[in-house]
Amino acid sequence: MRNLTTDNITQAVIDEFSSCDDERLKELLNGLVKHLHAYLREVEPTEKEWTQAIEFLTRAGQMCDDERQEFILLSDTLGVTMLVDAINHSSSDPKITESTVLGPFYVADPPQANQGDAINWGVEGEPLFIEGNVHDAQGKPLANVTIDVWQSDSEGFYDVQKPELESASLRARFHTDSQGYYAFWTVTPSPYPIPTDGPVGKMLEITGRHPYRPAHVHFMLMAPGYETLVTQIFAEDDPYLDSDAVFGVKDSLVKEFAQQPAGQAPDGRQMETPYRYFHYDFGLKTA
Amino acid sequence: MRNLTTDNITQAVIDEFSSCDDERLKELLNGLVKHLHAYLREVEPTEKEWTQAIEFLTRAGQMCDDERQEFILLSDTLGVTMLVDAINHSSSDPKITESTVLGPFYVADPPQANQGDAINWGVEGEPLFIEGNVHDAQGKPLANVTIDVWQSDSEGFYDVQKPELESASLRARFHTDSQGYYAFWTVTPSPYPIPTDGPVGKMLEITGRHPYRPAHVHFMLMAPGYETLVTQIFAEDDPYLDSDAVFGVKDSLVKEFAQQPAGQAPDGRQMETPYRYFHYDFGLKTA
Repeated sequence: MRNLTTDNITQAVIDEFSSCDDERLKELLNGLVKHLHAYLREVEPTEKEWTQAIEFLTRAGQMCDDERQEFILLSDTLGVTMLVDAINHSSSDPKITESTVLGPFYVADPPQANQGDAINWGVEGEPLFIEGNVHDAQGKPLANVTIDVWQSDSEGFYDVQKPELESASLRARFHTDSQGYYAFWTVTPSPYPIPTDGPVGKMLEITGRHPYRPAHVHFMLMAPGYETLVTQIFAEDDPYLDSDAVFGVKDSLVKEFAQQPAGQAPDGRQMETPYRYFHYDFGLKTA
Repeated sequence: MRNLTTDNITQAVIDEFSSCDDERLKELLNGLVKHLHAYLREVEPTEKEWTQAIEFLTRAGQMCDDERQEFILLSDTLGVTMLVDAINHSSSDPKITESTVLGPFYVADPPQANQGDAINWGVEGEPLFIEGNVHDAQGKPLANVTIDVWQSDSEGFYDVQKPELESASLRARFHTDSQGYYAFWTVTPSPYPIPTDGPVGKMLEITGRHPYRPAHVHFMLMAPGYETLVTQIFAEDDPYLDSDAVFGVKDSLVKEFAQQPAGQAPDGRQMETPYRYFHYDFGLKTA
């Protein structure tokens, strides 16, 4: 293992992993070495370019904390997250809801809320009522499904991006009732740029890509015996549906966030202002 | 750009970079997307595996500071640094000294030292005298070449790893004299493990790879009109020459660190103890 050249170094590295007992880990690392080396042999980076790549990764890591995940943004903006999603969740069954990216703003164990609650604690905006049902692949209603929802406000910011907020807002956990039904009030989300103050934002800027995502509401549905569903529902009239910075839009996840006049809402609430409304039914896949 | 699948998402991402004005950056990013996606399509990571990869990169970034560079360690241990080195510095001219990895312990602008100085400030060890000449590809001596040297102590630690040291040690900057000659005293370095307290060390551990590098002295030679040479001289009797954790050994860089009896050293110094000695001539390539 001396005098390694561009022709034999890849095999030398793979040989060094040969005593790895974990066969899957060995496969992942050998594939990484093979493809990463092939990339470098193809583009032939200068040492300065490779140093810049190291510096990019370092800055990305140093941006990360409990509320910011720059490597997820990198994975999202290079289409990697959606590729991994497609590898794991491609389903041709139209009864099963399609998945899309988790994004960097999910917070585990959000505040519990009750059926029909408003979750825009401390945040103003155009009211939005969301309701629907959760069923299995055969259409059977699923009771007591855990539904975590989270979204931006009407200016495109999540609660974790707003230090002035004293508590969580626009994120909550619901459970479907015995009929598989869920409902909540929120405010209409806005399209927004992914955070651009880090190296990923800089990459988008210098390559001429915009950082915007179309307006959406995130959902994560969890029930014993079913695959966890991570998805988003997108607003039908959004200008960024065909250029989502993270490649996450699917037609089956696009809904009209329908404008409604003031008056009685579907849950009986008397609305003194216009509001928006959509109904979305989710289908879960058996685990 | 909706409903992307494993078959068309790669091209969709490449298309998003199409308006990048910097053609080289576009080439680097398009190649990255193509090879990274090909890797993922081949190994088909689960979402958990991809999350673990994100967490690995995050921990690596968070280990980095002014004196620790975990991504260089990652690049080194995956053979990437030596591949980039081979891409940029392959030379078939035996008069030109071969290069090898910079490693994570270089510090810019080390303390200036004079010809023949000892650089083991505050550090004990077996004395080692190093001398030689620097020449160009035609063998012409090169005066006033800047030579940065740095190395581990006899227990395998660099000064930056020892907070108890009050100043730099075992690192210094020399200049060749009018005859292209350099000389200094130091202590014999030891083989040592690369830092194993981060994610890269964990990767080596769980894959059954040892973290050791053979004993070596680092050299960086800089002179106007010549390519900067980053290299290392390895001790001929080292047990890790054929399993260097960073794949950096080349036969032309291996020298006997010859044991010498007490008595008069080549620079006239009277040694009361045995010491070691090697002579190494460096050849620089015209820029």
